[in-house]
Amino acid sequence: MNLLCRGRLKLLVASLTAVVLLTWLYLLAGNLENGRSLLLAPCLADTPAAQVLERSVLESRVREVEEENRQIRLQLSQSQGTAAQPPDGNYANQQWGASADTGPEDGDNTAEEKNNHTECPRSPPVQKCELIHVACVCAGHNASRDVVTLVKSVLFHRRNPLHFHFITDTVAHRILSSLFQSWMVPSVQVSFYDADELKSEVSWIPNKHYSGIYGLMKLTLTKALPSDLTKVIVLDTDITFATDIAELWGIFRKFTDKQVIGLVENQSDWYLGNLWKNHKPWPALGRGFNTGVILLYLERLRRLGWEQMWRLTAEKELMSMLSTSLADQDIFNAFIKQNPVLVHQLPCFWNVQLSDHTRSEQCYTEVSDLKVIHWNSPKKLRVKNKHVEFFRNLYLTFLEYDGNLLRRELFGCPSQASPESVKAALEDLDEDDQCYDFRRERLTVHRVHLYFLQYEYTPAEDDTDITLVAQLSMDRLQMLEAICKHWEGPISLALYMSDAEAQQFLRYAQASEVLKNRKNVGYHIVYKEGQFYPVNLVRNVALRNANTPYVFLTDVDFLPMYGLYEYLRRSVVQLDMAHTKKALVVPAFETLRYRLSFPKSKAELLSMLDMGTLYTFRYHVWPKGHAPTDYAKWRTATTPYRVEWEADFEPYVVVRRDCPEYDQRFVGFGWNKVSHVLELDAQEYDLMVLPNAFMIHMPHAPSFDISKFRSSSSYRNCLNTLKDEFHQDLSRKYGSAALKYLTAQRNI
Amino acid sequence: MNLLCRGRLKLLVASLTAVVLLTWLYLLAGNLENGRSLLLAPCLADTPAAQVLERSVLESRVREVEEENRQIRLQLSQSQGTAAQPPDGNYANQQWGASADTGPEDGDNTAEEKNNHTECPRSPPVQKCELIHVACVCAGHNASRDVVTLVKSVLFHRRNPLHFHFITDTVAHRILSSLFQSWMVPSVQVSFYDADELKSEVSWIPNKHYSGIYGLMKLTLTKALPSDLTKVIVLDTDITFATDIAELWGIFRKFTDKQVIGLVENQSDWYLGNLWKNHKPWPALGRGFNTGVILLYLERLRRLGWEQMWRLTAEKELMSMLSTSLADQDIFNAFIKQNPVLVHQLPCFWNVQLSDHTRSEQCYTEVSDLKVIHWNSPKKLRVKNKHVEFFRNLYLTFLEYDGNLLRRELFGCPSQASPESVKAALEDLDEDDQCYDFRRERLTVHRVHLYFLQYEYTPAEDDTDITLVAQLSMDRLQMLEAICKHWEGPISLALYMSDAEAQQFLRYAQASEVLKNRKNVGYHIVYKEGQFYPVNLVRNVALRNANTPYVFLTDVDFLPMYGLYEYLRRSVVQLDMAHTKKALVVPAFETLRYRLSFPKSKAELLSMLDMGTLYTFRYHVWPKGHAPTDYAKWRTATTPYRVEWEADFEPYVVVRRDCPEYDQRFVGFGWNKVSHVLELDAQEYDLMVLPNAFMIHMPHAPSFDISKFRSSSSYRNCLNTLKDEFHQDLSRKYGSAALKYLTAQRNI
Repeated sequence: MNLLCRGRLKLLVASLTAVVLLTWLYLLAGNLENGRSLLLAPCLADTPAAQVLERSVLESRVREVEEENRQIRLQLSQSQGTAAQPPDGNYANQQWGASADTGPEDGDNTAEEKNNHTECPRSPPVQKCELIHVACVCAGHNASRDVVTLVKSVLFHRRNPLHFHFITDTVAHRILSSLFQSWMVPSVQVSFYDADELKSEVSWIPNKHYSGIYGLMKLTLTKALPSDLTKVIVLDTDITFATDIAELWGIFRKFTDKQVIGLVENQSDWYLGNLWKNHKPWPALGRGFNTGVILLYLERLRRLGWEQMWRLTAEKELMSMLSTSLADQDIFNAFIKQNPVLVHQLPCFWNVQLSDHTRSEQCYTEVSDLKVIHWNSPKKLRVKNKHVEFFRNLYLTFLEYDGNLLRRELFGCPSQASPESVKAALEDLDEDDQCYDFRRERLTVHRVHLYFLQYEYTPAEDDTDITLVAQLSMDRLQMLEAICKHWEGPISLALYMSDAEAQQFLRYAQASEVLKNRKNVGYHIVYKEGQFYPVNLVRNVALRNANTPYVFLTDVDFLPMYGLYEYLRRSVVQLDMAHTKKALVVPAFETLRYRLSFPKSKAELLSMLDMGTLYTFRYHVWPKGHAPTDYAKWRTATTPYRVEWEADFEPYVVVRRDCPEYDQRFVGFGWNKVSHVLELDAQEYDLMVLPNAFMIHMPHAPSFDISKFRSSSSYRNCLNTLKDEFHQDLSRKYGSAALKYLTAQRNI
Repeated sequence: MNLLCRGRLKLLVASLTAVVLLTWLYLLAGNLENGRSLLLAPCLADTPAAQVLERSVLESRVREVEEENRQIRLQLSQSQGTAAQPPDGNYANQQWGASADTGPEDGDNTAEEKNNHTECPRSPPVQKCELIHVACVCAGHNASRDVVTLVKSVLFHRRNPLHFHFITDTVAHRILSSLFQSWMVPSVQVSFYDADELKSEVSWIPNKHYSGIYGLMKLTLTKALPSDLTKVIVLDTDITFATDIAELWGIFRKFTDKQVIGLVENQSDWYLGNLWKNHKPWPALGRGFNTGVILLYLERLRRLGWEQMWRLTAEKELMSMLSTSLADQDIFNAFIKQNPVLVHQLPCFWNVQLSDHTRSEQCYTEVSDLKVIHWNSPKKLRVKNKHVEFFRNLYLTFLEYDGNLLRRELFGCPSQASPESVKAALEDLDEDDQCYDFRRERLTVHRVHLYFLQYEYTPAEDDTDITLVAQLSMDRLQMLEAICKHWEGPISLALYMSDAEAQQFLRYAQASEVLKNRKNVGYHIVYKEGQFYPVNLVRNVALRNANTPYVFLTDVDFLPMYGLYEYLRRSVVQLDMAHTKKALVVPAFETLRYRLSFPKSKAELLSMLDMGTLYTFRYHVWPKGHAPTDYAKWRTATTPYRVEWEADFEPYVVVRRDCPEYDQRFVGFGWNKVSHVLELDAQEYDLMVLPNAFMIHMPHAPSFDISKFRSSSSYRNCLNTLKDEFHQDLSRKYGSAALKYLTAQRNI
C-alpha cells in the first residue's frame, strides 16, 4: 500500500508542477504583449464597448483556468489524504464492542451517502486486472447447485480476473469442473482440492451442525490451498453478492501488520448465550463473528502457526463443550477470543445475515449499503425479515440469470477465453454460406450442469446393467413420471433448458412424488444457446454420463413396455454383448390416442395392432425409419433375429457404453438418429431385433423445430449439405466400405 | 478509411484554430492579472506588422504549450490505466468551454479508475430520494415494446424516485399506461402527453428520417411537459443504461449559468459531410451532437424563448436543406452551431453510439466506462462492433429480465407502492389457512403488456363483429397457426409467460408466415408470477381487450369449424343478440388422434362420430361438462334450440362483450369455466345451441396444473372451499334465486 501511494503521489506532484508551468507560460505570453502595449495606451478610450466585451470573455476564461487548477489541486490533496490515512481497522482491539460503524470505511460511507453513492466507499485501491482469489467448500449435489448462484452474483459485478478455489468431494468436483469447463468465462481460473484428503484434519472434532464434517474444513485452508497463495476471500455457498468483490478484496490493504483474518460481527444473539435457558454457546467476543465471509491472510496465518493454534483452542474447548454447534464458526470465535488483535472487523454489510432473530436490519439504511447477503437460516428464502422481498429479488435475479451472459471479456485484461482452435474455426466460417447458422451452432460450447439433482446409484455387480438414455426440453417434462413407472433401472437424462427453466424443472421434480423418490435418475442440464436445438450434442451428454456397461438409446416420448429393463439385462447375457459388437433393436410402435391402456404383453400389443389402436412407429409419415425392423417377422419371432441396415433406418437400440457418439453437426430436426445408426453399421455392429421387447410412442404436439423444418426450404437444403459432408467424413474414416451409404443415399 | 482521415484532418485544423483562440484568451487573462489588459485589444488593429510578429511567436509558444499539455494528460491517463480520450474530439469543442475531458466528472473518473471504481465518479451530489425526471417519445407497438427494455435497465440501477414522462400516440398510451399500472413499481410515477396534440408543432417540417413526425417531437418538450418542470433527461427508446441514472442527472449541477442543454458528441462522421460524394448534412459543430440522450434545462429554455429560436433555425435551414435527414437532431445541431455557449458537452460514455462507422470504441477502455448504450443503427443488435457481444449481453440481460424483480422498495424514500387496500387484504390473510396460497395468488397483481405485437383492426360497421377470445402459455404456441387458419375474424389472446418466454414468443410469431400476416390478432402478455396458473385472470385480460360487440369465449386447444366466424355473425343477427340476453352454445367435440382430417361439414362430423374417430368433448372423463348441450338433439337440429343450465355445465359460448367476467378466485385447474357459465345463468342469459356450429378439441399432453390437481388432495379440498365461498357471494349478489346452484352443487 505505501509503495503504491508514494507512486501515486509522485505522479500528482508531477502534474501539479506541470500546471504551474502552464500558468507561467500564460503569464509569459501576457508579458510579451506588454512591451508594445504601452505605446498604444491612448487609443483605448475609443472603444469602451470592446473593453466590456473582452472583459466578460476574459473573466469567464479566467474562471475556467482557475477551475481547472482547483480541480487538480483537489485531486492531489485527496490522494494525499488517502496516502496519509493511518492504518485503521485496529479498532477491533482498541475498544471491544465498538461496532464497525465507527470504522473509517463506514465513515467514508456515510460521507458518500450524501452523494447517493454508498456503493463506492473510497476503499483501498485494487489494481486494474489484479487477480482476486476466492475459496469455497462445496460438497454434494445441492451445494453444487447453490454455489452457482453465488458465482453468478460475483461474476455479474466483477471487474477483475478471478481465481476460484473449490474444496470439493468427488460429486461436487465432477459437477463443477465440467460446469466451468463448458462455461468458459474469460479471466476466470478454477482449482479443485480434494476434501476427502482433508477429512482427517477435522474428523476428530465432534460437530452437531448440519453442515457436518465439511462445515469444519475452512479451518484447513492454510494447508489445503497452495503454499504460495497469500490472501483469499472465503465464502459459504449460501452467499449472494450485490457489489463488486474487488471492494471486499481491497480491505486486505487496510489490515494492520498484526491482523490476519477479516470477519463481520455475528448478527444473531447466539453467542450471548441468552437464546434459551441453559443455552451455553462457545466462547466469543461479544456476539462473536460470522464465518460466512472471511478475509483470510494465509501467508501471515502460516507464519503464525495457525494450524497448531486452532487445534489447541479446539481441544481445550471441546473438553468442556464436547462438540461444536456451529462447526468452524465456534472454533474461529474461541480462537479470536484468545487473540483479539488478529481480527480485522469488517463493516456489517459485508455479511448481512438473514438468520432467525437477526439484527441485520440495524446494518443498512440504503439499498446500496447491502453488499453481501447471507442466507444462513435453515428457512433460506422463506425466512421472515422486513426486507426479505428485496433480498429474495436479488437472489432470484441471479438464480435465473442466463449464465451465458456472464461470458463477457474484461476489456484490457489478458484472458484465455475460448481456445484458439474455436476462435480460428469461427473465423473460418463464411457468413454468406447459407448454412452459416448450422456451422456456427456446431461451434457453440453449451454450458453443462451434470447431476443437477441428487443421484445415488451403483451399477449392478453382474456387469449386465443398462441405463436408459434420453434427452428432452421443457415441453416433455410430463413424460418423466410415466417413464419412471415403466423403467425401474438407471436413467441418464439430458435436459435442454434456460437457467430459468432449470429452476422450474427443479421445483417440478421436487414436488413430484414419483421423481423425488427415484435416486437412480441422473439429470444433466445443457443450457440453451442459439436458435437451433442441438439434439445430438444433448444426447451425447446423456450418453457420456451413463455409468453402466450398456445403454438403451431412446427418446423421451416413448414408453418402454413394463419389465423391459429386466428383459434387456437377460438379453445382453444371452447375446453375449460383452464380447460381440451388437445393437439390440427394441421394436417401436405408436398410438395416436391419449388415453391408451398400455399393453401388458406382446400378445396384447399384437391384437391392438390388428384393432388399429396401435401402429408401427411412423407408419403413416416415415415408414422407412423402422421398416427394416421387419415387423411382419417380429409378430411371430420367438428368438432374436438379425436385420440388415437400410437407408434412413433409425431404430432404438441397446449397445455397449463405448458405442460411437451422435454426430453433432445435425441440429434441430432431421437425420440426427439416422446418422448414428449408420455409423453403428459402418463399425459393423450386428443389428439384432428382440422378439419380446417393444416400446410405444406417446402422442404430443409437434416440436417447434419440426414446424421450422417444414416451413423453411433453406433448412432442408442445409440438411442435405450436411448429409453430404457427413458421408465424406465417413469415407475418410471407414474407407471404401462407407461408399455403400453414399449410393444408398443416392438411390433414395 | 479515406473519409476518416479527411475527418481527422479537418479536426486538426479546427483544433489549431481553437488553440490559437485559446492562447489569445490565456494571454489576455495573463494581462488581466497584471491589470494591464485595458491597454490591449485595439492596438492589434493598429499594428498589423507587430500583430504578425506576435502571432508567430505566440503560435510557436502555443504549439509548445499544447504539446506539453498533451504530454501531461497522456502521463496522467496512462498511469491511471486508461487511454486518454481522443484529443481531437475534445479540442474541437474546447472553444465552447465544454471539453468532456477537462470536465470534473472525467477528472474524478480517471482518478477513480485507479480504484477500479469508474462506475462511481464523485459526480455532483444527487440528494437521497431526489426525484429524477425522464422524458421519452414513444409511438406504436414496437417502440412501446422497446422502451420497456430501456425502463428496465434504468430501474435496475436506479436508487432514486423516478418520474417518467411519455409523449405517446394512442397505441403507446394504452399499452404503457396499463403496463405501469399493473407493474406497480414503488417510487415510480408516470405521466402521459398526447403526441397528436403536438403534431401541429412539427408537422410543417419535412423529415426524411424513418422515425417520421415523432422523431421531431423532442423539440416540443418545453411546451408538452408541465410548465413547472425545470429539468428533464430525454432518452430515445433504443437506449440501454449500464449505471445509475442519478449520475447523469447530477451533471445538471455542473451546467454554467448559460448552458441549457447537455449532449454527447456525435460518434459518426455524418455531420462532417464526407460520407459520400455530395453528401450535404445540416450544419453542426465539428461532428455535431447526438440527441439520443439529452439533458434538457427546460426552465432556462423557456426563458430563452427556445420555441421561437428552434423554429427560426429550422425555417432558415430548410430554405436550403428542404428537409431534415435525422429529424430533431439536425435542428438541434443547427441551433447549437448558432448558439454554442448554450451546450454542455457530456463525456462520450453517456451515449455510446453503436451506429455504423461509429468511433465509439475510442470512448471507453473499461467495461465500467460504459454508462449508456445507444442502439442507433438500423441493424440494431446485429450491428458489427468490436465489443458488440458485450453490448448485446447487457441488452439481453434486461430484455429477458423478470420485471417483477424490479418491484423493490427504495429503503428510506416515501413510496406509494401497492394500494392500501391490497396491503390490508394481504395482512388479513391467515398463513395457516390451508388455502392460503390460493388466496395469496388472488391478491397478486400480474404485470400486463397489451398488444405486444402489431395490431390493426377496426370492427365491421354492421355491429355484428365477433372476437375469438382465448388464453394460453408457451406449451400451446403451436396451436396459434391452426386457429388462425380456422378463424379469419379478430382474435384476442392473453398469453401467460415470463419475460424471457415473451421474447421467445416474439421470435416465433415474427418467423411464422401465418402469424406475421395477421394484423387482427391482439396478443396480450400476462407476466408469470406465483405458483398457480391464474387462468381466469388471464381470460379476463383477453376478454376486456376484445373490441367487437360480441365475443366467442373458447379455449386455445380447440379448432373452430371452417366458416364459423361468418356463421356466428349471421347468428347474432338472426337471434337478435343486440336486444336480448343470450349465450350461443358452440357444440364441442374432440379427437384423440393427432392426424385428423378436419370435417368440412356437420354431415362429415356426424359420420366421423359414428365411426368413432370423433367423440363429444370429454365424453370419457367429464360428460357432465357438455351433456346439457344435448348432442342427440343437435344431430338432427336445424334451428337453434334452448337448453337448461345444469350443474357443472361449461359450454363454449358467444355472448355480448358486456358479459360478466370470469371469477378470478379459481386458479389453476377446476371450475374456472363452470363458475362463469353459472353466473351467465344467474343473470338469466338464454343458452341457445347453434345447430350448424361445431368446434373440435385437439389432443395435447396434460398441463402441469392438472397433474398437480390430480396429485394433491389439499388442492381439491381448497377448490371445494372456494366453490362454497363462490356460492355465498352468488346469493349475496343474486339473492334467493342463486340458492338453486347451491342445491344443484349439493346433489352432485
